[in-house]
Amino acid sequence: MSDRRQFRDLDSPERAREAIRSLDLTPETETVPLDDARHRVLAERIDARLDVPGFDRASVDGYAVRARDTFGADEADPVVLDHIGTVHAGAEPDVEVREGTCAEISTGAVMPPGADAVVMVERTDEVDAGIAIRTSVAPGDRVMVAGADVAAGSRALGPGTLLTPREIGLLSALGVDEVPVRGKPTVGIVSTGDELVRPGEDLHSEAGQIYDVNSYTIAAGVEEAGGEAVLYPHAGDDYDEMERLLVEAADECDLVLSSGSTSASAVDVIYRVIESEGELLLHGVSVKPGKPMLVGRLEESAYVGLPGYPVSALTIFRTFVAPAIRSAAGLPVPRTATVEGRMAVRERYAEGRTRLMPAGLVETDEGTLVYPVDKGSGATTSLVEADGVVEVDADTDYLAEGERVTVQLFSPDVRAPTLLGVGEDDPALSRLLDRLERPRYLDVGSRQGRRRLRDGVPDVAVVSGPSDRDVDAVALGGWTREWGLVVPAGNPDGVDGLADLVDRDLRFVDRAADSGLRASLDTELDRLADARGVDRRDLIDAIDGYDLTVKGFESPARKVIGGAADVGLGLRATADTLDCGFVPLGTESVRVLANPDRTNKPGVEALRSALDTHLDDALVGLSGFDS
Amino acid sequence: MSDRRQFRDLDSPERAREAIRSLDLTPETETVPLDDARHRVLAERIDARLDVPGFDRASVDGYAVRARDTFGADEADPVVLDHIGTVHAGAEPDVEVREGTCAEISTGAVMPPGADAVVMVERTDEVDAGIAIRTSVAPGDRVMVAGADVAAGSRALGPGTLLTPREIGLLSALGVDEVPVRGKPTVGIVSTGDELVRPGEDLHSEAGQIYDVNSYTIAAGVEEAGGEAVLYPHAGDDYDEMERLLVEAADECDLVLSSGSTSASAVDVIYRVIESEGELLLHGVSVKPGKPMLVGRLEESAYVGLPGYPVSALTIFRTFVAPAIRSAAGLPVPRTATVEGRMAVRERYAEGRTRLMPAGLVETDEGTLVYPVDKGSGATTSLVEADGVVEVDADTDYLAEGERVTVQLFSPDVRAPTLLGVGEDDPALSRLLDRLERPRYLDVGSRQGRRRLRDGVPDVAVVSGPSDRDVDAVALGGWTREWGLVVPAGNPDGVDGLADLVDRDLRFVDRAADSGLRASLDTELDRLADARGVDRRDLIDAIDGYDLTVKGFESPARKVIGGAADVGLGLRATADTLDCGFVPLGTESVRVLANPDRTNKPGVEALRSALDTHLDDALVGLSGFDS
Repeated sequence: MSDRRQFRDLDSPERAREAIRSLDLTPETETVPLDDARHRVLAERIDARLDVPGFDRASVDGYAVRARDTFGADEADPVVLDHIGTVHAGAEPDVEVREGTCAEISTGAVMPPGADAVVMVERTDEVDAGIAIRTSVAPGDRVMVAGADVAAGSRALGPGTLLTPREIGLLSALGVDEVPVRGKPTVGIVSTGDELVRPGEDLHSEAGQIYDVNSYTIAAGVEEAGGEAVLYPHAGDDYDEMERLLVEAADECDLVLSSGSTSASAVDVIYRVIESEGELLLHGVSVKPGKPMLVGRLEESAYVGLPGYPVSALTIFRTFVAPAIRSAAGLPVPRTATVEGRMAVRERYAEGRTRLMPAGLVETDEGTLVYPVDKGSGATTSLVEADGVVEVDADTDYLAEGERVTVQLFSPDVRAPTLLGVGEDDPALSRLLDRLERPRYLDVGSRQGRRRLRDGVPDVAVVSGPSDRDVDAVALGGWTREWGLVVPAGNPDGVDGLADLVDRDLRFVDRAADSGLRASLDTELDRLADARGVDRRDLIDAIDGYDLTVKGFESPARKVIGGAADVGLGLRATADTLDCGFVPLGTESVRVLANPDRTNKPGVEALRSALDTHLDDALVGLSGFDS
Repeated sequence: MSDRRQFRDLDSPERAREAIRSLDLTPETETVPLDDARHRVLAERIDARLDVPGFDRASVDGYAVRARDTFGADEADPVVLDHIGTVHAGAEPDVEVREGTCAEISTGAVMPPGADAVVMVERTDEVDAGIAIRTSVAPGDRVMVAGADVAAGSRALGPGTLLTPREIGLLSALGVDEVPVRGKPTVGIVSTGDELVRPGEDLHSEAGQIYDVNSYTIAAGVEEAGGEAVLYPHAGDDYDEMERLLVEAADECDLVLSSGSTSASAVDVIYRVIESEGELLLHGVSVKPGKPMLVGRLEESAYVGLPGYPVSALTIFRTFVAPAIRSAAGLPVPRTATVEGRMAVRERYAEGRTRLMPAGLVETDEGTLVYPVDKGSGATTSLVEADGVVEVDADTDYLAEGERVTVQLFSPDVRAPTLLGVGEDDPALSRLLDRLERPRYLDVGSRQGRRRLRDGVPDVAVVSGPSDRDVDAVALGGWTREWGLVVPAGNPDGVDGLADLVDRDLRFVDRAADSGLRASLDTELDRLADARGVDRRDLIDAIDGYDLTVKGFESPARKVIGGAADVGLGLRATADTLDCGFVPLGTESVRVLANPDRTNKPGVEALRSALDTHLDDALVGLSGFDS
């Protein structure tokens, strides 16, 4: 690999911010109809071009009078005035109020000539001789004079004003139906890499294809930051095609982002195109993740190259690019851009460069706890497990437990989950979670679940298998599930029990060691080993695939269906759902355990209530499940 | 007027909320393309239908090996393996890794058959005999196995999830390109009242027409709350037309809002249509403002009638309707829906019904101050002077200064202004304000400005005229402006000075008593009275129009141009801008005075800096202005 691609001379994050600031993304201003102006930003000051109201108007329903005619009138001694006519709202007055007369008037109607005050209807009576006025009024009473609300020539709204419903209202009052607003920066997204396929297209896993995550993610981020995203057709690693696409994007957009591939060859192609058709201002930033970030110009446009891993791409976008788009659009930093919290755990870090640590949030009585999420695996699940990133200085060695940190949220719409659960994956649990508002559940397995609950980060852990290792916690409830061996429909190999795995030449697929189901399997293996008077290890060594572990509760069954295995560890419910055969080995309990400090948290209460009320519903159709 | 329209039997706000909850606004769910799914809400749970990744993939660039071949290798004693080929990302492997061999592999590429680990390139060297492996690896090292990120069959996202960029990312990874989301409730807006004209259309002020403020304001509020707003053509007060429009809206929408007119006849027409074509659940709510609110059904749709005054309409919408729309759309309450603060002043209230008090926000070192804004005048400027409403219980007699209150913001996008200024209106000041981010300036006149600054609510007051009444404050700077009498171009009446107003039959237009310009005029009148040895009151009585006051600094000149007056109080700059004649009477100073406790507030600093740096720019082209 070339020296360049190894990014030996890394720039500081501050230098990267400067480089992006130095690029001008600001589009031309534009004029939009008033009903499209919401959440846009005024490009220039709006002065009132007319008085509001445009005429002296009655503020109440009542009678327009000459104030001096009412002097001395009160409840006991009303003045009676001649009723000479009526003025309706939206109509030109056809009467003149002279001495001793009055005109009925509606709220908002034009004051008739001669009248200088309005008496509200509640202070009047119709009498034979006319209208009895039971109060005295001063000139101007209950009248809004022309321009009293907004005077023509006055400053109504300043440049840079974000238009919310109330500003739309003021513009309406001024009769403004076309609004000069800041343009939305157009952001072209070019995704690269031979291995990427757009969602909705056919995926060839055997050829190493994966769905393109970054294009739509970043496009959504662009729109959220106030830009207009343009997705270009996916490009492979071919230089000419990439050049054509990047140049086309540069012609059409204020900013071009390349994103997608983690492969060195795709990065290399882009690198060469930018060097040839534009200028690289910096290549490589001293941050983790995001080292391979590129900043430059491409023809007349700005260019930023994002890293390939989804969390890294979103992190770099959130940290460096979104603020530039927002600023070019004239939008303020949202109030919900960040959240303050305290570290839930101690987090070591000593790589000598800035770290953008993906972090999740947990709400507690003592405020928001922040825990690190991604370990740089490139997992897309980290995307939804993290709520944002904590920027850790290059010279920080560790973040102490309880230390105050600021989380830059991935979106102003992101909120801490109402419940953080960890542990076993289970179909009944999934249904119960569906009844909660905004829960987060990480299926890390029962063993990890217990460990994390003990460490105090999650609100609840859901565990299955033997209960003798359960931690000190508050049991919220649970259910049982029948487990065993999933085999092809009709059980063609005639599998009868665990012994067949040991004694026969069957390809097995196991669950991960952290799984409660795996612990149940191991317990049964112990029993078999005892019965045979051998060590469990001997049995395990005889099972082809005992160490071949997969993640989800359905995964072994799917391997069996796909023909990659003869037998998988799983649930009767899964076998039934996927039309497989099933050899029962036992029934295990699933326990929902709550952090003792969080039992009053609304999300935990909601889960307890779902367990109390909806467990039977959640078990419907799940064969082998029981409450 | 009928008893009904006086709403004698008012329902409680809680009853109003219940009534609205009882109406079902929830639309059908719909399916949208992934790139339109941002900020939508998942209608159902999304389970993974495939493993992510779909194959065992290399996590780094390096060499795919059989882990057992590397046992014992280290920097000092590498193992050398045969290099049998290369696997690129996005390509099917065409090699098999057998004992003693390795294959070069890119990040993200498919693990070739036989290999069970990857050695990162940094731990290898090309040597003559092949590839020197300088570390030992275990099976699974640097490999992400199929389904390790997301396992097929697992719960990916729950129903009710708000889709932000990260969720879009996870859906992309799962290949989901069409997303089942909650429908947006369709909200029809029918505006009523003969006096209303849509922005952009011609306005006939003489016939009492005003622009329709509520339709676009409420439409923007509907969209912000997650609904789809449909504006129906404006209707007058005619029963048949109104009935036709309301029924059409009910046929097409989940919710119909009527809004606009303050006139009793328009309200009456609507009332009768709803009673005939639907059902009124409640008419009149014991809140201020909003008493005339209606809630009911119209055919199969929900119906709410909003009050006519813009602030009242937005207040009732914000308090009762927006939450219902949001809930029907499945959207959570935004984190920025409310702000906590302390009352800046004591506010009395004792009307025995709930008050929704429009309130403005000021940021201080000690937190957010909240002050009441609208006094029920129906002014549209109150819309932008208020940031939200404080709900005050019916049995609360007053809010104490310093009392904690919650402000329900008019929009989640509303933020407290960076600067709250009050006082004189002035064209140079308008330009300086244009240089600040998000200032709020209320042109209440110099006298009111001084009073409010003394009461401690605003950050700065801008005052003109005599300085002997100025309050104790920190002077940030100022300028001078020439003032006098604005007359028609060419000065056809040959006006020469103040004495002409007293001695001749000229129609004069004055500024309001709170204006600094008016104080300057009064000082000159005192001087003239002294010179003549008479009382100022005698001079004033001789001026036709001394008490005819208008609001803006350009307003008198505009009256002169319109022919409604011969002479107006004003500035030389205004006379020049509007091509009028001008008779100078003096030069007055304009002073920018800061609240002594707020001089370090960023908005105040920004104003001081604008005064220091940009004052000369602000005065360019303003004749008679000097720094």
